[in-house]
This record gives sequence, C-alpha cells and structure tokens, in this order.
Amino acid sequence: MARNLIGIDLGGTTTKMAFISVDGEILTKWSIPTDTSDDGKHIVPNIIKSVSAHITSSEFSKADFLGIGMGVPGPIDIENGIVLFAVNLGWKQRQQVRDQIQEALGLPFVLDNDANVASLGEYWKGAGEKDEDVVFVTLGTGVGGGVIAGGRLLHGVNGGAGELGHVTVQPNGYLCNCGKRGCLEQYASATGVVHVAADMAKDFLGTSRLKEMEDNQENVTSKMVFYLADNGDILANQVVDRVTFYLGLALANVANILNPANIIIGGGVSNAGNTLLQPTTRYFQENAFPAVRDSTKLRLAQLGNDAGVIGAASLALRFQKTN
Amino acid sequence: MARNLIGIDLGGTTTKMAFISVDGEILTKWSIPTDTSDDGKHIVPNIIKSVSAHITSSEFSKADFLGIGMGVPGPIDIENGIVLFAVNLGWKQRQQVRDQIQEALGLPFVLDNDANVASLGEYWKGAGEKDEDVVFVTLGTGVGGGVIAGGRLLHGVNGGAGELGHVTVQPNGYLCNCGKRGCLEQYASATGVVHVAADMAKDFLGTSRLKEMEDNQENVTSKMVFYLADNGDILANQVVDRVTFYLGLALANVANILNPANIIIGGGVSNAGNTLLQPTTRYFQENAFPAVRDSTKLRLAQLGNDAGVIGAASLALRFQKTN
Repeated sequence: MARNLIGIDLGGTTTKMAFISVDGEILTKWSIPTDTSDDGKHIVPNIIKSVSAHITSSEFSKADFLGIGMGVPGPIDIENGIVLFAVNLGWKQRQQVRDQIQEALGLPFVLDNDANVASLGEYWKGAGEKDEDVVFVTLGTGVGGGVIAGGRLLHGVNGGAGELGHVTVQPNGYLCNCGKRGCLEQYASATGVVHVAADMAKDFLGTSRLKEMEDNQENVTSKMVFYLADNGDILANQVVDRVTFYLGLALANVANILNPANIIIGGGVSNAGNTLLQPTTRYFQENAFPAVRDSTKLRLAQLGNDAGVIGAASLALRFQKTN
Repeated sequence: MARNLIGIDLGGTTTKMAFISVDGEILTKWSIPTDTSDDGKHIVPNIIKSVSAHITSSEFSKADFLGIGMGVPGPIDIENGIVLFAVNLGWKQRQQVRDQIQEALGLPFVLDNDANVASLGEYWKGAGEKDEDVVFVTLGTGVGGGVIAGGRLLHGVNGGAGELGHVTVQPNGYLCNCGKRGCLEQYASATGVVHVAADMAKDFLGTSRLKEMEDNQENVTSKMVFYLADNGDILANQVVDRVTFYLGLALANVANILNPANIIIGGGVSNAGNTLLQPTTRYFQENAFPAVRDSTKLRLAQLGNDAGVIGAASLALRFQKTN
C-alpha cells in the first residue's frame, strides 16, 4: 500500500522537492533552479521531469505514492487546480498546473498558496503541536500567513483568508504594493524593516552604527538591524521596537478574533529569534484581551526551509482523506 | 418524529424563548423577566417552569422537540454545559446549567455565548445568506461577535474567538473594562459613541445641537448622536466619522484575516442603518486588501431581537447532528 507523499515548494528562485512518509518524515529531498524565462513556461515541465527522474532512480515505484502537493507564490483557484498568476514565476496569466502534472505523472495532485502550505507544515510537524487552532505568519521579503481553525485551513470566500501581511497596523501609513496604506508587510517584512530603519535614521540624533551606515549609504539589511540591536545600537533598538510594536499589535488582533493555541512566526526575519520574539510578545500581551492573552502563545517556527515541502505533502495527504 | 426546537435567549433584563421548527421558523415566542435577585438563583428554575408550562399549554408534547439551545451573556465551558460567570445575571460563580435543565425537562440541552448564538441566527435565517464564512458583530451596550468559518462556529483554544469588541483600534486609547486600552468596544458600542461624543464636544468650536446638549449636561444617547448626524449636525457627523473609522478599520482587519462572504452588523447601534453602514463601508474599503475588499460585504443584521432565539434553536439542531 502506498505510504508516501511528494511535497513541492515552488519558489521564485528554487523549487524544493521531497519524498515524505505519511508520518511527515522527509525520506529524501532535492531542489532545482526555477527557470522563469519565457513567461515561466518551463517551470511545470521541469518539475515533471525532475520528479519522474527521482522516482525512477529511487527505491520507490509510482504505486508507493499517494499523491503530490505543491505550494505556489500566488493566488490559486484550488477547486480547478489553477494558479491565477504569480509575478515571481513570470506567470502573468492563469496556469492549469494540476491537469498537466496529474496527466504526466499519473498521481493525484493538489496545490495551494505557499504561505498556507507552510502553515500546514508547521501545524503538522513543527511548532503547531497539532493544536486544532493555529495561525502562521511568515516574515520574508513580504509577509504572508495561514489560518488553521478547527484543524482546517481557511481560505475565505475569495482565497483571501490568512493575508496577515495586509492587516492595517498604521492607518494612512506606508503605501503597500497592494494599493492600500499601513499594511503590516510594509513594517515587518525584511524590506519593511529596512524601510523603517531608513526613515527613523533621518530624524535620529546620536551615536549609532546603523545611523552611520544609513548616512554612508551602506547596504542595510533586516538581519543587520537585528544584529546591531542585539549589540546595543540605540537606533537599531528603536527600529526593532517600532517593528515589533506593529507585529505585536497585528498578532494580538488576530488572536482577539481567533484565539488560536499558537501563533507561529517564521520566515527569514524570524531568524532574529528572541530579539524579535520578546518585544513582539510584550506588545502582543499589551493588545490582547485577557482570556486570549492567557491562552494564545507566540512561538518561533521550527521547520525552517522544510516547512514548504512538508506542508505540501500534508496537503496531498489531507486531500486523500477528503476525497 | 420530532421536528421542533426550543431556543432561549437569556439576557440581563428579559429571557426570550421560542418554539422553532427545524426549518428555522418561529412557531411561537414569549418572554419572562430575568430575576437576577439572590445571585441569580431563580433564573434557571424560572426557565424550566416557563418552558414546561408552554409545552403543556401548546399543541405539542415533549416528544415533538429535538432539543433546547440557549445563549448566555458570559463565558461558557461548552463541553460541560457550565456558565463560568455572568455579571449581568448576578452569577458570580460557575453554574451547572445544562444538567439542571436536561434533568428537569428531559430534552438534550446545549448552550453558548450570546453573541455566538446571535451569529448562528443571522447565519441560518438572516443576513448570512447561508454562506459558509460569516462574521457577526453586535454593537449594543458592549460589542460582541461571532466567527463562522467553513460553516463552523469558532471558539478558539480558550473560548475567546469572536471577541471583536476587544480588537485594538487605537493603541493607548480609551481604557476598557477588560483592562487593556483602545478596544473597539470603547468607541463603537452605544456607551462608546456617547464617550466619543463627550470627548469631541470639549474641543468643538461651532454651532451644534449636540455641543449644546453636552454643555447643558443633557442626556446624550448613541441614538441621538446618529439622529443629529442624519440631520446635519456638524459635531454629530464628526463623532459618527470617528466611530465608523474605528469600526471600518476593525472589520477590515477581520476580513484581511478571514475573508468571510459577509460581515453582519447587528445590535442597537446598527438601528442607525445607512448612517452607520455607509461611512463604515468606506473605511472598511480603505483598509481591506483588494481581493478581500472585492469579495467581503458588510451588511446590516436582519433578525433584530429574534437572532438570539433562532440562533439558540440552530445550536440545538447542530448539536443533534454532531452527536
């Protein structure tokens, strides 16, 4: 009986793939570069070729797999297995991904948005601890999220559930790519942290390495800001305070609405660890309703880059169970 | 076969009750005063007596009813059928409500928080239009709410899901009874509107009936503020603008997280109708992510005072189906 799953995490630079057991253990994982040339038309054929070759060269046959799940950086028509568009992949128009892959590989295929898929990964094998109510927020180049309530991933009526990056934290604040102002993404993503740092440096009068870097137009990264804050830089600490205020406020409101057992913080910015988590938790507690504050916990993600492939595999498993 | 349900809406002043068909039609409804004397110890016996008498005097027998549902103004231990406390009922300690009523009336009994129950009512027979994803916010003396996602009422890990009244809309704003600051309830409840009006009147320089009323220490109500706004009073319009800004912001963030088909606004303040709904919708649209703004609609509640008994009946029906 088939006991394995295939998880695919399709990103703008790399496509990660893995064979994963139904218990969520990674059996083997590999990756290929994502070829976004020619409007991304090589992406799906390359995935098919790579998965096919890995099955052939492995100890497994196709019959050992229950199905394939994939996370994609863009909005999805889940029912029809279509990616509506995905700027980072060069996909400007609808892509019928499911039918292509199902036909070529002869395995059931299901896909979802990458942040949703990563949420499922952390829920299944990471920091979610299998609680039925878990929210995941990923702080990367942008800010994404996923909401699992009663053990089910929520999509909402138009696929917009879990768009935590677009929670308004500062009315009339920074303009976001989405067209509105004051989105969390503009403050708590890696690019948001850099933006906040540049702005706050303008008005800062004092001794600070971060201020020097900004004045000398050196390349400031989010990682650098947290590193400097950790090492006592005053401006860097003010930047972290402002960023974590917005993050703590947004997550407190998520919790006031959903009261999940855990809110899991992942993505590159979360590598700052406690330098991010501690002040965020303080602002979270300040803005969460008592019954919620006492029960909803903030945690750092545990799976790192594997959340995508593990979550994608879990998607395939869930799909099997409901069909 | 039993085709009917009993819905009870237990409030601080009145207890509303109804016999309701499994299709959600009210067959008969009545109410009794809620006797909160002696720490509320007469409340449950009075309900038992009243329901029992109404069954006897009706065309129905006990066998015609599937069960009883009830909404209560306080936090609940749903699994054990216990009300943890309910200030407005005089219940300072845990009350084993379910066992008392089940034993006395011999019918299955289930209870939930009143705002959750009203949400189910609007979801089932009111403005929810039976979409699977619906959020309900009730603007009364306080602000409550309920979240239905994928057709299921969410409770969260500690019963705090749907506490929309405690979404922070103004960091470091008005102090709330819950102990934190800037809760939606402090701005968009009936008492919140009055508070905002009193504060804004202090700084207002101009001609306004509302300003006059505040200066003369006349009794200003939320209803009066909306009435004056409707009739062109400048200060009253500024108050409505501020209140609806906060409400629109909070509901936009609910929608950015959940993307429900509908957010339904009920409670006494919602009787202001379009004077409330239009500016709230404008601020909602300003703060909602495009995919959400285009799909989540704000609507006024339709069931009025009947939402409680209808929702309570629906709770009993849902309970039957899952047990």
